[in-house]
Amino acid sequence: MVLNKLDIPKSLKESMLYSIEAGGKKLRPILLIASFDAYGKDKQKIVAPAMALEMIHTYSLIHDDLPAMDDDDIRRGKPTNHIVFNEATAILAGDALLTYSFDLLATDPRLTDEQKIFLISELSKASGPKGMVAGQMLDMEAENKKVSLEQLERIHALKTGELIRFAIKSGAYIGNATETQLTHLDEFAYYLGLIFQVQDDILDVTGDQAIIGKPVGSDEDNQKSTYPKLLGYEGAVEQKERYLQLAKKALYNANADSSYLMKLTDYFSARDH
Amino acid sequence: MVLNKLDIPKSLKESMLYSIEAGGKKLRPILLIASFDAYGKDKQKIVAPAMALEMIHTYSLIHDDLPAMDDDDIRRGKPTNHIVFNEATAILAGDALLTYSFDLLATDPRLTDEQKIFLISELSKASGPKGMVAGQMLDMEAENKKVSLEQLERIHALKTGELIRFAIKSGAYIGNATETQLTHLDEFAYYLGLIFQVQDDILDVTGDQAIIGKPVGSDEDNQKSTYPKLLGYEGAVEQKERYLQLAKKALYNANADSSYLMKLTDYFSARDH
Repeated sequence: MVLNKLDIPKSLKESMLYSIEAGGKKLRPILLIASFDAYGKDKQKIVAPAMALEMIHTYSLIHDDLPAMDDDDIRRGKPTNHIVFNEATAILAGDALLTYSFDLLATDPRLTDEQKIFLISELSKASGPKGMVAGQMLDMEAENKKVSLEQLERIHALKTGELIRFAIKSGAYIGNATETQLTHLDEFAYYLGLIFQVQDDILDVTGDQAIIGKPVGSDEDNQKSTYPKLLGYEGAVEQKERYLQLAKKALYNANADSSYLMKLTDYFSARDH
Repeated sequence: MVLNKLDIPKSLKESMLYSIEAGGKKLRPILLIASFDAYGKDKQKIVAPAMALEMIHTYSLIHDDLPAMDDDDIRRGKPTNHIVFNEATAILAGDALLTYSFDLLATDPRLTDEQKIFLISELSKASGPKGMVAGQMLDMEAENKKVSLEQLERIHALKTGELIRFAIKSGAYIGNATETQLTHLDEFAYYLGLIFQVQDDILDVTGDQAIIGKPVGSDEDNQKSTYPKLLGYEGAVEQKERYLQLAKKALYNANADSSYLMKLTDYFSARDH
């Protein structure tokens, strides 16, 4: 892991590595690689983008778990970063992972200048105030409020969807997909993100804490708007099926060697953690 | 201000703008512009770098002021971000400013691809785990401990010095300074950063709260290592003079049209806030 080699303060490195290595599913890098595989060959080119993406995702989890945010003590079955270290270190580890992801992209010798700028521009948009951070803000503001299905979709499209779109789009871009293919893939990624979130909400109702690695029912405790709350359990499952059909249609239109992406889509829809 | 035009959640934008517009001295962008002026002409090119730099600096202040970090209620004479909004919003506003600064650099049409990558690479290094965040971590760890002058210099070189070096280096780079000039300027910037910090420490002892805009004596309260504590008040003033001579010598060697930079150096050394 590239972070191991950094000459940085020991406690900062330990805190960054703790969350990166906490046994997450690495779904976003896997999606990026799968999307690349559908078009391209030279896998060396996607090492840095996949790592940068996972660092951004991990930073967002560290900050989301802070007492001032979701106040979660457990993540991926382990104590959260601020519990193991302390709040100040967790804030800095998050800031460090976020910032270092752009350093990594800007200096990777396997990427062309044009690719670096595409990736940095897309990743900063997907994760910044127009993307993930906006979703987190809207999600917080929606607590204890009744939101519509449309508002719920918007929150999730920003909070989790934008990084999933980045994964799919940037993998295919580096694999030299055409503009038309990228457009269809982007639609696919949009629905994939929603599938991911519906299933997340469903698992928070029906899941097994030992498998999920975080407490079940925390959405209810936090008065969060969820698909099951809005549509009922059956309604949420039906909604997920609708998204699944739309995702598969868009993937078919993207005209890719997409059997792996198709499998991942089914996995996203049926996952138990 | 470019942030005004962003289509993002209202509360997030208000929180970002509040700290950006809180009446800071804008020293870093001013340094960047002064360094550019010593070599270059087309000022349009430095608009985005100067804004990105100020956003990174502002994000670091917002996060530093959080209760889990320095726990400061007043900054630049006004309530800190988390006091006006709340902790969660302040964390997100900081994350958003940090991330958006890279978006801004990656998409500015006035910069060449090579300049974009130089700026993003240098700014992420200066502000990330090898730079400012490392300095913040070491600074926290040094609280309640006796540190040597060497350790103190290292902390400040990282915590405040790296962004000052970025300002000087990137301004001159975009102004097309030569490699040799950049090397001398980097040495100049190193000492300028230390001058800035010694004066900061001196002001915390002798300054006027109404002028500084934050409480005097907070370093003492936080058990921070400072130059006056390590060298005595007279010793700190002498140390500042030494740095000042070294800075001016390096600036002379950089062979620039540097009268403005020279004035700023004297201002840094003698400033009362």
